[in-house]
Amino acid sequence: MEIIRTPQEMQRRALELERAGHMVGFVPTMGFLHDGHLSLMHLARSRCDVLVASIFVNPAQFGPNEDLDAYPRDFARDEALCEAAGVDIVFYPEPASMYASDASVWIDETRLSQGLCGASRPGHFRGVCTVVAKLFNLVRPDVAVFGEKDAQQLRIIERMVRDLDFPVEIVRGPTVREADGLAMSSRNKYLDASQRRDALCLKRSLDEVTDMVRQGERQVAVLRDAMADGIGKVAAAAIDYIEFVDDATLVPVQLVEGRTLVAMAVKIGPTRLIDNAVLEP
Amino acid sequence: MEIIRTPQEMQRRALELERAGHMVGFVPTMGFLHDGHLSLMHLARSRCDVLVASIFVNPAQFGPNEDLDAYPRDFARDEALCEAAGVDIVFYPEPASMYASDASVWIDETRLSQGLCGASRPGHFRGVCTVVAKLFNLVRPDVAVFGEKDAQQLRIIERMVRDLDFPVEIVRGPTVREADGLAMSSRNKYLDASQRRDALCLKRSLDEVTDMVRQGERQVAVLRDAMADGIGKVAAAAIDYIEFVDDATLVPVQLVEGRTLVAMAVKIGPTRLIDNAVLEP
Repeated sequence: MEIIRTPQEMQRRALELERAGHMVGFVPTMGFLHDGHLSLMHLARSRCDVLVASIFVNPAQFGPNEDLDAYPRDFARDEALCEAAGVDIVFYPEPASMYASDASVWIDETRLSQGLCGASRPGHFRGVCTVVAKLFNLVRPDVAVFGEKDAQQLRIIERMVRDLDFPVEIVRGPTVREADGLAMSSRNKYLDASQRRDALCLKRSLDEVTDMVRQGERQVAVLRDAMADGIGKVAAAAIDYIEFVDDATLVPVQLVEGRTLVAMAVKIGPTRLIDNAVLEP
Repeated sequence: MEIIRTPQEMQRRALELERAGHMVGFVPTMGFLHDGHLSLMHLARSRCDVLVASIFVNPAQFGPNEDLDAYPRDFARDEALCEAAGVDIVFYPEPASMYASDASVWIDETRLSQGLCGASRPGHFRGVCTVVAKLFNLVRPDVAVFGEKDAQQLRIIERMVRDLDFPVEIVRGPTVREADGLAMSSRNKYLDASQRRDALCLKRSLDEVTDMVRQGERQVAVLRDAMADGIGKVAAAAIDYIEFVDDATLVPVQLVEGRTLVAMAVKIGPTRLIDNAVLEP
């Protein structure tokens, strides 16, 4: 397995792979890998002959009061996990090599990014879009895999690929969960034992509304109240948002009539967790 | 010479050329070609083995009160000129095929685009950056040529290539002028005989300040007044802007101490013309 540390070297290698006719798969990550990431790598592995994973905690997608410095990092462990997952190249750049001090070009998605995490985290998706475009230009993948856990991010990346004509196929990787249902996330590391139990309220509330919809409930107000009630019983939990939106446009809906994304962000103590489900009436 | 009408077909062809190991040169244009465009094609021709030119009057870079509909078009003539210039592929898409009705991803340059034409034409460089990124992803060029006449655009594209890591070499094509000095532009077609003479005031004023700098004048206030005085004598001319800026950062300067770009936009009757020169003290 190769480890590449600079954007220049990554691009040189990517152009070489391209000329040699390889099918390149790509999984961008912020490292501190868990089984969710590994499942994306396995998905990509089956679609390519050279698999590139990037490990880059992207400063541009963190707000000034967010957890950039605290974000967990363990490169030695990540390296071993990548090797075991069949990664051929790990791209692991320094932040200073990715952004010039006078960097001034940014990519904005102006519709899908308005609500959900976009409303709670101003500038977040600008940072995500910009770094993903940069990584696409450095790695030149044929196929890239993004996780469904970051539902809004996934749809925004798909939109960017469409609107900027990147020749990259985006594959959706299903959310991977712990045995008790908690969606895997690098941020789960922040949770102590009691918070870890409390964090189950996210998936529990998603399961509850999925059942309610299956039983015929269509009113978002009713579904949302049920979720809020369940989460309200957990003292350490504070709802950032619970939203029901059209699965394609991310526009809020009042009734679950078509494919509907229910997405949520909840703070468990100081740790902000997200989860989501697609409701199909 | 091939003519390609859809983004899908252009990208399919580009990926085929890439796999075959071709060196692709690219000249994006809005058509109604003149010798300025042709000089860019000759420059590109010497740097590649497959030359692609695009002809696309990009709606996203025109403001609501600008000349999108009036912009001159003559595809049959452009086609013949491309063929004569050694173009291998003309990419000539319909606007509706380039922008989805719900397009929502845009590229913004946030520093170099603040002054000059960026101040006079809000949204213009967002449209330019977005379409150039799209064209780069559709054509996948190794080298692309942009004219120095659009000085701010050229520097913004260079910045975008740097900040988004496009693997494209940008080559600067010198401004081509009519025998009497008028910078070639598709918009020169709008000028009647009298306006055509009046339009010479742009280059004349650039020559004047170039001389003044050569003779030791460094004060931008003095240089700018000399330009404004000369243009003021032309009744049909109205100055949109005359700016002296650092050639790299496009930040306004008060003294011509380093490489300084003097850039101007002047309306001759209803027609807005631009020109520029680099002053080297």
